[in-house]
Amino acid sequence: MPVRIALIGTGSVGKGVLEVLSRKNTGIILTGVADSRSGLMDPGGIPVSSLLDRKKKTGLCGERSISALKVVTEGEYDILVEASPTDAVTGEPATGYIRAALSRGSHVVTSNKGPVALHYRELSNLARENGVSFRFEATVAGAIPILHTLLDSLGGNEIHALYGVLNGTCNYILTRMAEEGLSYRQALDEARALGYAEADPTYDVKGIDAAVKLVILANTVWKKEITLDTIDITGIDLLTEEAIRLAEEQDATIRLIGEIVPAENLYRLSPRIIPKHHPLVVQGSLNAIIVRTDLAGDLIFAGKGAGSLETASAIIGDILSIRERYAGGN
Amino acid sequence: MPVRIALIGTGSVGKGVLEVLSRKNTGIILTGVADSRSGLMDPGGIPVSSLLDRKKKTGLCGERSISALKVVTEGEYDILVEASPTDAVTGEPATGYIRAALSRGSHVVTSNKGPVALHYRELSNLARENGVSFRFEATVAGAIPILHTLLDSLGGNEIHALYGVLNGTCNYILTRMAEEGLSYRQALDEARALGYAEADPTYDVKGIDAAVKLVILANTVWKKEITLDTIDITGIDLLTEEAIRLAEEQDATIRLIGEIVPAENLYRLSPRIIPKHHPLVVQGSLNAIIVRTDLAGDLIFAGKGAGSLETASAIIGDILSIRERYAGGN
Repeated sequence: MPVRIALIGTGSVGKGVLEVLSRKNTGIILTGVADSRSGLMDPGGIPVSSLLDRKKKTGLCGERSISALKVVTEGEYDILVEASPTDAVTGEPATGYIRAALSRGSHVVTSNKGPVALHYRELSNLARENGVSFRFEATVAGAIPILHTLLDSLGGNEIHALYGVLNGTCNYILTRMAEEGLSYRQALDEARALGYAEADPTYDVKGIDAAVKLVILANTVWKKEITLDTIDITGIDLLTEEAIRLAEEQDATIRLIGEIVPAENLYRLSPRIIPKHHPLVVQGSLNAIIVRTDLAGDLIFAGKGAGSLETASAIIGDILSIRERYAGGN
Repeated sequence: MPVRIALIGTGSVGKGVLEVLSRKNTGIILTGVADSRSGLMDPGGIPVSSLLDRKKKTGLCGERSISALKVVTEGEYDILVEASPTDAVTGEPATGYIRAALSRGSHVVTSNKGPVALHYRELSNLARENGVSFRFEATVAGAIPILHTLLDSLGGNEIHALYGVLNGTCNYILTRMAEEGLSYRQALDEARALGYAEADPTYDVKGIDAAVKLVILANTVWKKEITLDTIDITGIDLLTEEAIRLAEEQDATIRLIGEIVPAENLYRLSPRIIPKHHPLVVQGSLNAIIVRTDLAGDLIFAGKGAGSLETASAIIGDILSIRERYAGGN
């Protein structure tokens, strides 16, 4: 049976989801869509290619009279896909949409870090009370299905620790500083030119983005209730070429590493000197994660940490998992 | 609600499962157990620590009058955990046990490569017809939840190719030949002394074990119907120190790599010269896998490929996934 989704947000992530729906037979139908200025609902299914065309030409995905909230509260869908931009301070308006969808008994899949980092406990309780799923694979490590792995596949393991390269922009900058002897400023400009860094890169280079992902991991995998304030954060914006050169002289390099060791109450993000052959020394905009477990030992994961289709991959994975689960059988 | 399992096989894998049950509160109850010479059933739950003691002292887990088949067909359990030794030629007696369990409407989790490599299509159909699950995470790459990832988490992706180091014994031997300049024979003897290699290492070093895993991956992830004969197999038993030395001179090394590229009809296992910084160059008895996907890009996984608790981790993960799924909700 096809699963009906309503998509909120048609930026990079939303467009990726629409791309996949238009290219593949996924058994997913779009019955609602909204951007920040317009919305559209059709219980019979919205043709995705013409939607993509319209958005490209007019900048709008639907009608101005239909708000995102209207799509969320009045649309006919099984799963809300919340892909609006992250606001790490308020978590809005995404949290409101998610709350509304869960309350009416719809599943929610989100790529939005704000609601998960700020309100995981409340939202997961709300999902449970309403007998629906709340999933957010796309919020951490892009294409790497790390939450699925830690929360589902490794069930039965205690996860003792997690170490990760969780921000592709910072990793790109550090890679280029080491490879080419660029200054921080030069590498940042290059990252901007290639679209890896935003015009205002503060959120990435000061470590906020990676730290928010640590909050999500801590609160979901370990059921903690920490906030951004709990994380000991050092970004890469004050790093000198000299520091990188010194590391390189020791056959090492510098990476921005997030660490969670709950037994030691350690929640830290900081540039670390690590040996060049260490599994966390991935190149360019890749992400990498090591988890330390009691049964499975150490496991290493690496892959693309961002990107339109890569993030869509995580969202589609969540949608299909929900469909499988509620279909039951085999 | 606790889930009831019957365990067939109390070798390394079975003991690992029992270890976990005795150490952790997993919500899993053992209601049946059998080794090759004895069996035991108790719908109220078999105390695991005393079972482990008895097995250690007497070599038997139960009574000689109770066969494994009796436990499978007459026991009261929700999930059969089939962990008897792999017979890659006949797949028996494991396939018979699995068939019997699925036919009576019980789920099956197995670490046994024979039944999956030889009879996946039949057994998965049988599972579907009976509305139950057939899972086998432990058959490939030990502690790395690669099947869960490819079959569940990456749903929505096309997997274009898979490349992997799938046999820890061979990888250990190759690592030691490169690191210490040992001959194949010396490295093999060392692997034997450390318990990585069996007294008869043929199955590992001739590549059969890794090739069987490729068959399982091809038939389950890509729904092919290949057999061991389809795989182009070269083991490591004829590899010379000279070959390794030559590779090392080029800042490369040799690893036994399994490759699946369905679009090119490529199913191959062979020693390959690869650059030292390649993600598949893992050390010692580790396994590593790269998958190439259309949406998520390239993903890399590494971890322990074997071991009693590591394999138990995969089995417990399968058991808990089945419990989650059939419990429904959240």
